[in-house]
Amino acid sequence: MKLLEERIRQEGLILSAAVLKVDSFLNHQVDTQLALEIGREFGRLFADQRITKVLTIEASGIQFAMAAGIALNVPFVYAKKKKAVTLTEQVYSASVHSFTRQETYQVSISQQYLGPDDKVLIVDDFLATGAALIGLVDIVNESGAELAGVGCVIEKSFQEGRGLLEQKGVRVHSLARIASMSPGEIHFVDDPSPAYLVKEML
Amino acid sequence: MKLLEERIRQEGLILSAAVLKVDSFLNHQVDTQLALEIGREFGRLFADQRITKVLTIEASGIQFAMAAGIALNVPFVYAKKKKAVTLTEQVYSASVHSFTRQETYQVSISQQYLGPDDKVLIVDDFLATGAALIGLVDIVNESGAELAGVGCVIEKSFQEGRGLLEQKGVRVHSLARIASMSPGEIHFVDDPSPAYLVKEML
Repeated sequence: MKLLEERIRQEGLILSAAVLKVDSFLNHQVDTQLALEIGREFGRLFADQRITKVLTIEASGIQFAMAAGIALNVPFVYAKKKKAVTLTEQVYSASVHSFTRQETYQVSISQQYLGPDDKVLIVDDFLATGAALIGLVDIVNESGAELAGVGCVIEKSFQEGRGLLEQKGVRVHSLARIASMSPGEIHFVDDPSPAYLVKEML
Repeated sequence: MKLLEERIRQEGLILSAAVLKVDSFLNHQVDTQLALEIGREFGRLFADQRITKVLTIEASGIQFAMAAGIALNVPFVYAKKKKAVTLTEQVYSASVHSFTRQETYQVSISQQYLGPDDKVLIVDDFLATGAALIGLVDIVNESGAELAGVGCVIEKSFQEGRGLLEQKGVRVHSLARIASMSPGEIHFVDDPSPAYLVKEML
């Protein structure tokens, strides 16, 4: 998605060879029009799949699941990292290890909101190690729902997430695929010429 | 907002005199069309205010901040409960006590995304004790931005949140105001006749 790659070039900040900061427009401050456009792109990619529900994980997946839900005209569900006091019924849950935070947490969703009649599109902001997304894939499989695929906004293609998902037979669409990056420079998979970031490093 | 009150009657579950469960359509599974309609209502209520930014707190405020941002055609910012590794710059922060979870946590937002040029609409899913919203009001004041008001989806009018916000001079709009509730029965402020919930208790 060229519009997204362009914004990453203009506003992204590379903090290290593995950490890209996009919180001015995607995951802290959010450009609502861009988020809607991202949702429309997921809608186009999965238009033939008769999706009944979009699934994501709190918090940074919510704006993109919402946008995809708008485009596909279906509800979305977000997995919770803490058990809410109102979550009184049975849940599906999975254990997720966060390499960024060096902690393991449980994600869970109510069994009421996912079942064998559903066809699910999983959406998230980043695909890197794939840990959170694999947790969601396991939850979809446990529920008996059919998985149409995974849609990610930004993929760090130099990390193992896509490979792990594809080993599980999951169809993965990422809107911006980063082949490699280093401070001030980023290479996208579909555009092998180096692209220099417009913004200075912090 | 009659449409919202109707959905609460149809799908809400009252777990105690203080806890209303709406996670089938608002804050776990989300009806995207209803969320958009909620955003349009916030847009109508604050249409004359020249809002530049919508502010909320992760996670359950995000879908409504997104919807309000769409309606007002402005970006939104969500305060974080944990410091992200990419949040390297100066932050505004406030301490919030959660009575539901019996814990105190810090909420923070980057100083880059809020400042004296902004006019802010704060949005959240619930107004009860007001603790989280007062934290956000304090952050807006600290940033030098102008606060247009607070928009809440559901207000528990029998709790102190609205009073505390109004004492601070904050304009509060809630789309469904609950005067009182008990298992199987709910009373809205603008409709003093009792409304019986359609769904059975769990």
